[in-house]
Amino acid sequence: MIEGVQIIPLKRIHTDNGDVLHALKATDEGYTGFGEAYFSEVFQGVRKGWKRHNRMTLNIVVVMGAIKFILYDDRDGSASQGKYFTIILSPTENYSRLVVPSGVWMAFEGVAPGVSMLLDIIPEPHDPNEADKAPIETFKE
Amino acid sequence: MIEGVQIIPLKRIHTDNGDVLHALKATDEGYTGFGEAYFSEVFQGVRKGWKRHNRMTLNIVVVMGAIKFILYDDRDGSASQGKYFTIILSPTENYSRLVVPSGVWMAFEGVAPGVSMLLDIIPEPHDPNEADKAPIETFKE
Repeated sequence: MIEGVQIIPLKRIHTDNGDVLHALKATDEGYTGFGEAYFSEVFQGVRKGWKRHNRMTLNIVVVMGAIKFILYDDRDGSASQGKYFTIILSPTENYSRLVVPSGVWMAFEGVAPGVSMLLDIIPEPHDPNEADKAPIETFKE
Repeated sequence: MIEGVQIIPLKRIHTDNGDVLHALKATDEGYTGFGEAYFSEVFQGVRKGWKRHNRMTLNIVVVMGAIKFILYDDRDGSASQGKYFTIILSPTENYSRLVVPSGVWMAFEGVAPGVSMLLDIIPEPHDPNEADKAPIETFKE
């Protein structure tokens, strides 16, 4: 595991007319404020990344399909410096919230047929200057 | 239209690896604070409701399938008292955010094959005492 990363199981509440799925409460562990909620789609076998947020904690929930997340820690002084962490999340097989602290590199890949989709809740509205990008071949897990 | 209800078109930003879809920013019209984000699924031809929130404004985005929303205003003193408003939202055909003020009754129905899903962002964590429910046959649009 990478220091500061959290995987928090979420509840799916069954009703006969369709389920209710928890995503994030302001009182939840890992919540750091609300700036923006957005969705990101990714196709099967396609990898988006790498991206590193330098101020913001990410709160990520997979709402459609299945997505593999690959995290890489190159933070100086981190107990997990140099380590990778991967996890597959989906609304049916592993419905959990992924908390990614600032400073950790992330890439993600669709691993279900067609398009998969995540919800990300971030503590500030999107700011391209707050994040760094690196080509997908930069780090190899 | 019902007084206080807003339909705000949202951006879908195309990328070759999968689109990014805006949902809600803290600086957006209709935002009233963050208490909780949750998903609700609904099957085709099934109607969930009626429900009326007495304190909270709802910010609703349809993320999967297509959902028909039926709103009913029975608020004393409202310019639209006695009026119904219906709209179909979907991430592909009509990608917009529906803002429902407190005091307005809402029901919704899946209108795409299989299961449809909405995201709702509310300014307080879920509180069953904050909402009223009525059987689906109570109001007829």
